[in-house]
Amino acid sequence: MLIAGADGYLGWALSMALASRGYEVVGIDNLSRRRNVEEIGSWSALPIKTMLQRLSAFRNLYGKSITFVEGDLTNYVTVRDLIASYKPTAIVHLGEQPSAPYSMIDVNHCVYTHTNNVVGTLNILYAMHETSPDTHLVKLGTMGEYGTPNLDIPEGFFEIEYKGRKDRLPFPRMAGSWYHWTKVHDSGNIMFACKIWKLKSTDVMQGVVYGTRTDLITSPELFTRFDFDEVFGTAINRFCAQAVIDYPLLPYGKGHQKRGFIALRDSIQCLTIALENPPEKSEYRVFNQFDEVYSVGDLAERVERHGRELGLSVKVDHIDDPRVEAEEHYYHPDSANLRKLGFKPTHTLDDELEIMLKDLMAHKERIQAKRERIMPKPYWKR
Amino acid sequence: MLIAGADGYLGWALSMALASRGYEVVGIDNLSRRRNVEEIGSWSALPIKTMLQRLSAFRNLYGKSITFVEGDLTNYVTVRDLIASYKPTAIVHLGEQPSAPYSMIDVNHCVYTHTNNVVGTLNILYAMHETSPDTHLVKLGTMGEYGTPNLDIPEGFFEIEYKGRKDRLPFPRMAGSWYHWTKVHDSGNIMFACKIWKLKSTDVMQGVVYGTRTDLITSPELFTRFDFDEVFGTAINRFCAQAVIDYPLLPYGKGHQKRGFIALRDSIQCLTIALENPPEKSEYRVFNQFDEVYSVGDLAERVERHGRELGLSVKVDHIDDPRVEAEEHYYHPDSANLRKLGFKPTHTLDDELEIMLKDLMAHKERIQAKRERIMPKPYWKR
Repeated sequence: MLIAGADGYLGWALSMALASRGYEVVGIDNLSRRRNVEEIGSWSALPIKTMLQRLSAFRNLYGKSITFVEGDLTNYVTVRDLIASYKPTAIVHLGEQPSAPYSMIDVNHCVYTHTNNVVGTLNILYAMHETSPDTHLVKLGTMGEYGTPNLDIPEGFFEIEYKGRKDRLPFPRMAGSWYHWTKVHDSGNIMFACKIWKLKSTDVMQGVVYGTRTDLITSPELFTRFDFDEVFGTAINRFCAQAVIDYPLLPYGKGHQKRGFIALRDSIQCLTIALENPPEKSEYRVFNQFDEVYSVGDLAERVERHGRELGLSVKVDHIDDPRVEAEEHYYHPDSANLRKLGFKPTHTLDDELEIMLKDLMAHKERIQAKRERIMPKPYWKR
Repeated sequence: MLIAGADGYLGWALSMALASRGYEVVGIDNLSRRRNVEEIGSWSALPIKTMLQRLSAFRNLYGKSITFVEGDLTNYVTVRDLIASYKPTAIVHLGEQPSAPYSMIDVNHCVYTHTNNVVGTLNILYAMHETSPDTHLVKLGTMGEYGTPNLDIPEGFFEIEYKGRKDRLPFPRMAGSWYHWTKVHDSGNIMFACKIWKLKSTDVMQGVVYGTRTDLITSPELFTRFDFDEVFGTAINRFCAQAVIDYPLLPYGKGHQKRGFIALRDSIQCLTIALENPPEKSEYRVFNQFDEVYSVGDLAERVERHGRELGLSVKVDHIDDPRVEAEEHYYHPDSANLRKLGFKPTHTLDDELEIMLKDLMAHKERIQAKRERIMPKPYWKR
């Protein structure tokens, strides 16, 4: 298994999970996430070790080795030689710039996100085609590709009737940031590569992932990152961080925006299911990967409740939405595909919130030190 | 008016047309089309002058000046400073790598086409947002963004009912080459920029353009390019070139692939109509810009007939389709928007073919010299 983005939040947790399951795991990462979070003046609330330290701690604790290559997916020779030499059964591509606000900072961050994400994916597709055409590409997309249409959201494709004729077509995408659009562009490119080169791929439209732990993250030496700043932190993460430092939780706007959510360990369960149930040659399939749907207001309320149970004095306030997005909307996405293959969610948001808050309370000073990085800037409107 | 891609087939003809109509015209081009055609070992069948020679010839013949800047749209400072200093009423963005086979040559050409096209468009959008938000962007897309679904093709958006609910959504795109996908990516990005920044844009899904002349191209000094090689030449152009040198016309596969077509001078009429009937602020509209629908076999038959009338001995043969595309398909795209604004086609394919063949017969030796560049390579399948 080749994991692109092995140093990231999901990539590190997945690398350990697959190695522990007995797979030979090779990771690649250019460490850009660490640099990009530093660039905006923040850091991970949970202190994370260097890749070498983590690999060594994992080997000591679990007796399993993971091979790691520092390299950039936008360099075709790096990607081709890696894939040609390992001929992996599967590539899990998590190696993209994942922040919507970061992509909206200015033209340079917009263009960087486009070239990093789109070119990295094109390089992987070409390298598979040229050197390892039977490899299964599991690509991380996002539920945000769909936006919030006034229709049920199918998994990638839908049968429609229009002016008396029928066809099965890709569901229209209406992304809400440059970052989300790069994932839409990737989806089109992967679908096309599967068609012309008979590659196989699972394009994962993932919901928001939360949580600090998997069954293997038993020691702080194995922590995966936890971003809480306005650029790289999700709403849940920011609320948890705000709760820990007695800062009001600040949902954007009315807080009625709904999204799909999934716990980190359940995301890894889903990715493992996708890997162990590969599509056929030439098949491009789409999985909507989330467990529960919550509004931003629901999240704040839950963080408030769990925070108070842990003795924190939590308040909820509201600020203007810095994004351009629908604050009231229909949201009914399908997610049957993974469940049909055996996905059983193990942890709800309520289960994880207590764990997350406790982990964060032990590192309150790291959040306190960067508290001014939690407040949003109006990247969408400026 | 700012014309991006002013040295290209359409760009040069449009620059003259708008200048002649009394507009102040500024053109920008990095001359990449000339380099890219040289790279694949070909040239324009009609000899074209350098930009400086053309500008001077146009001034001498028509008494109108066009300002030209040699510059690259992927350089943000170039684009921003140009737009900030001219604050054009409109930008016509024709400055993209336009060849599907070129984008399919290898990973480098695929990535080049992506970065050139997608980044160039993003730079224009950001420069408009930052320095000239009332400018109208007329962007050249392609009918090929839609592919060949088994449905009528609307102009960009359609009202659909799905599982009992209704919405107006972008029509799904199913492009057939990396080049075509870059245009899809652009369309998503432009739609999003209009939404968040209240820009206005017309996204032109153009059919295949043919023809060597407009009313202003009265002298060989003003010729616009005519590519006939397998990489940059369209099917019509290759058939005309083959007819002129007594080489069999070679439609790909059964020749039943249908596409929309429009004469060069009618394309310019359409772009002028779009410019003179701009959308509202925040509006992103899509025009399907073509006149007639033909199959590739129809084109070959028409070139054969007109060639014989001009004394050429033309034969039609067939070769395997080097592309991955549907050879038999439904094709019924709408094109009412431009007609509602006054578009009246002036020249049919039959009208133009005689003119094109005569122009090419005068430069038979240039086609003969590059005859080995007309045969296709299987870029899609290798």
